[in-house]
Amino acid sequence: MNIIMHDLAGADPALRFSPYCWRIRFALAHKGLPVETIAWRFTDKAAIAFSEQERVPVIRDGDTVVSDSWAIAEYLDKQYETPTLFGGAAGRAHARFVNAWADSIMLGGIARLIVRDVLDIVDAKDRDYFRKSREERFGVSLEDVQMERESGVSRFRETLQPLRLVLRQQNWLGGAAPSYADFIVAGTLMWPRCCSRFAVLAGHDPLNAWFERVLDLFGGLGRAARRP
Amino acid sequence: MNIIMHDLAGADPALRFSPYCWRIRFALAHKGLPVETIAWRFTDKAAIAFSEQERVPVIRDGDTVVSDSWAIAEYLDKQYETPTLFGGAAGRAHARFVNAWADSIMLGGIARLIVRDVLDIVDAKDRDYFRKSREERFGVSLEDVQMERESGVSRFRETLQPLRLVLRQQNWLGGAAPSYADFIVAGTLMWPRCCSRFAVLAGHDPLNAWFERVLDLFGGLGRAARRP
Repeated sequence: MNIIMHDLAGADPALRFSPYCWRIRFALAHKGLPVETIAWRFTDKAAIAFSEQERVPVIRDGDTVVSDSWAIAEYLDKQYETPTLFGGAAGRAHARFVNAWADSIMLGGIARLIVRDVLDIVDAKDRDYFRKSREERFGVSLEDVQMERESGVSRFRETLQPLRLVLRQQNWLGGAAPSYADFIVAGTLMWPRCCSRFAVLAGHDPLNAWFERVLDLFGGLGRAARRP
Repeated sequence: MNIIMHDLAGADPALRFSPYCWRIRFALAHKGLPVETIAWRFTDKAAIAFSEQERVPVIRDGDTVVSDSWAIAEYLDKQYETPTLFGGAAGRAHARFVNAWADSIMLGGIARLIVRDVLDIVDAKDRDYFRKSREERFGVSLEDVQMERESGVSRFRETLQPLRLVLRQQNWLGGAAPSYADFIVAGTLMWPRCCSRFAVLAGHDPLNAWFERVLDLFGGLGRAARRP
């Protein structure tokens, strides 16, 4: 039986744009595990009530329900050992730093660049919820947040410098082969890719070469993703 | 025969303050390898000419000479397998991200807080070199860089948020036990600890509990370090 995953979708059900869900899509593909995704909207809280929390991704694997992208990645790596996502206990512990960095630095930085664009692609029933919850978080209108993106994008790009230093030395964040660290960061970059036409990376950024390699993985899973 | 390490020292030869050297002091202690350190000053280029570069740490292990903290850590983990510093290939690959983040984000942030204080502890023969090279890097006087530290320190502390998120979930960056990831970050924090009385971490910062644990390792190696 395939794993089932609730996956954040836009008004167009083929538009899948959650950075956390993308991390798990890549992780499942890495394990060679087929998945059946169910389009889910922000306000579909009832549809995932069985998981006893309100966010996606949620996976159901037989009788097992797991939510939270990090917990799902850990579950998958224990349940389906090869190919490894983490490369052992220390690899997992160190990947947690990449995860925490992506969550706090990358996601916050990207939100300031594209959050108003997201409003244009979410489902009609999600629009009020999305605007209200995000404006509470930022303390200003979505339009005001994103208005400064042309001047703010260079600061965001500077925060990615650690990635560039690593990828000068090795082809993947995982070393010689992709690991969950690659899926964390690439999954995070799938969010702006699938929500916006704004280029969060400059054209000449050496990170593009690595991101293109991730987009090519698994038969072009990331590259084939619907864009707005 | 003991490993020999050239270790950056201040006017007081017991004051050892290089973040890169501290990473290796911790790594050597983790491996249980005795080390004989040689006090080295910025302008002692001739003393390490045998390493064919101009920076410390440099180690000599029998006939083998290795420079650059990352290269030394890799060398030690290959040459002396247990206890491991990296926990395997993926652990090493992921730790490289921690290293790159510490080098680009932490060191740059800390420099803006304490670089003028460093001038007070370096050897007399290093003072002109230190001021000139660092003022060229910043484009302003050391006094001007550090003048803004009271207002700038909160921004620096915010950049450490990924560490706090990780250390909420596990006792060490290495997981259940310390790894080179801990020594990278703690070694970086030994720099301001040994150069300055300015508190780069707030007193209530949860990172203090972890740093105190590192200071206690190896019989209190870090805690015993001379401070200005």
